[in-house]
Amino acid sequence: MNSIRVPVVEKILSANDQLAHQNRSFLKSKGVFSINIMASPGAGKTSFILQTIQGLKNRMNVGVIEGDTAAVTIDADKISEVGIPAVQINTGGDCHLDAVMVAGGMQQLPLENLDLMIIENVGNLVCPAAFDLGTDINILIASVPEGDDKPYKYPNIYRGIQCLVLNKTDLLPYVDFNLEYFKQGIRILNPGVDILPLSSKTGEGMDAWLAWLCKRINEKKHAQK
Amino acid sequence: MNSIRVPVVEKILSANDQLAHQNRSFLKSKGVFSINIMASPGAGKTSFILQTIQGLKNRMNVGVIEGDTAAVTIDADKISEVGIPAVQINTGGDCHLDAVMVAGGMQQLPLENLDLMIIENVGNLVCPAAFDLGTDINILIASVPEGDDKPYKYPNIYRGIQCLVLNKTDLLPYVDFNLEYFKQGIRILNPGVDILPLSSKTGEGMDAWLAWLCKRINEKKHAQK
Repeated sequence: MNSIRVPVVEKILSANDQLAHQNRSFLKSKGVFSINIMASPGAGKTSFILQTIQGLKNRMNVGVIEGDTAAVTIDADKISEVGIPAVQINTGGDCHLDAVMVAGGMQQLPLENLDLMIIENVGNLVCPAAFDLGTDINILIASVPEGDDKPYKYPNIYRGIQCLVLNKTDLLPYVDFNLEYFKQGIRILNPGVDILPLSSKTGEGMDAWLAWLCKRINEKKHAQK
Repeated sequence: MNSIRVPVVEKILSANDQLAHQNRSFLKSKGVFSINIMASPGAGKTSFILQTIQGLKNRMNVGVIEGDTAAVTIDADKISEVGIPAVQINTGGDCHLDAVMVAGGMQQLPLENLDLMIIENVGNLVCPAAFDLGTDINILIASVPEGDDKPYKYPNIYRGIQCLVLNKTDLLPYVDFNLEYFKQGIRILNPGVDILPLSSKTGEGMDAWLAWLCKRINEKKHAQK
C-alpha cells in the first residue's frame, strides 16, 4: 500500500509548490502582503483576525480567505459584518487549504485595492504544515488551554513559521501552563521564531503583534523598491 | 490530479475497513472492550484517560494505545507511571491512527489480562473520522475553550460517535460558550448521541461518564452470553 501511496503524495506536493510560487508572484505584482494563519480548532483564529483588522483600521485595506472543511460561512460572515471582503473556501472534507484553493479564492477578492490578505487555514496541527500556500509569512496560533506540550507533539507545524502567537493568555490563571517549557520546545524546532503572547479577548499584547506585522510589511515594501 | 488521488484514498479506506473488522473480532475473542477517543489537540484526552483509569481502579484491567504524529512518549509515559500498560504509536506524520497501526499496537499489550483497551487517537478533528479502528465505541472529547461552534465546522467527526464528552467545564465561567447552541449543532448531526459535560481537572461529571461506560461494557458482556 505504501508503495502506491507515497509517490502520489509527492506528486501532489510538487504541483502545490509550483502553484504556491505562482500565487506568491501574483500577490507581489499586486503589492499585496499575505499571511497564512494556522492553528488547532478553537485556538481563536477568527477572533484574532477580527482584532487585527480592528487594529489596522485606517492604516491599510485587508481582505480575508476563510478555510473550512464544511460548507459553512460562520467565520466569513463574522469578517464581512465588519465591512471587510471575505471569501469562504470549503475544502470538501480535506484537512488543509492548498495553493489551488487559495488561487481560486484570491480571484474573488478585490486585490487591486488590498494591502494585506489574511488566510485562515483549516483548524489542524498536522496537515497544513505540508502545504505552502504562497504567502509571505506563515504564523501559528497556539492557545493557553491547549497545553504547553504541543510543540513536542506536533513539531512539523512549528518548523515553517515566522511567528508564534500564544493566544488566550487571559486563561493563564485558570490552567496549568508552563510558559518556559512551551518556549523551550519551540526554540529546539525553530530557534529564530518570534513568540508573542496575547489575548484576542482582552486585547493585551495585540499592539506588539501589530507592530511585528507592520514591520514585516514595511520591510517587504522597501526591499521591492 | 484528482483522478489519480481519489481511487488511492478509496483503496486505503477499504483495506482499513477490513483490518478494522479483524481487530474487532480479535478483541471480541479476547473479551476486551475497546474505545477510540478522538479530539482536537489539547482537549484533554490524556488527563481524561488518567481520570478514567483512576475511576475504574479495582474494577477492571485497562490498557492504553497512544497515537502521536511525532516520536514522543509523553502521553504513554504518563499512563505507564500509574502502572497501566501503554503502547505509543508514532504515525510518522500522519494525522490519524488506522486499523493497521492499532493491530500492531495491540500485539504489544497483555490483552489476555485486559478488560478494557483505550485508544487515544492523534489530536485532530478531521482525519480520524474516516478511519474505523475496530473499537466497540468511538467517543469525541470537545473542550469548552475550543468554542461552541465546532459541531458546525467539523461535522464529520460528530457523526460516527456514541458519546460526546464536553471537557474543561471548570473554564465555563471564563469563556463565552453557549451550551445550547453547541448541543443543537450536535443533535442535528447525531440525534442519538449522549452528551456528557465534565471536568477531568476537578473530577466533576466523571461519575456519569464512568457509569455510561460500565453500562456499555456490561451490555456487551450480556449480549455475548
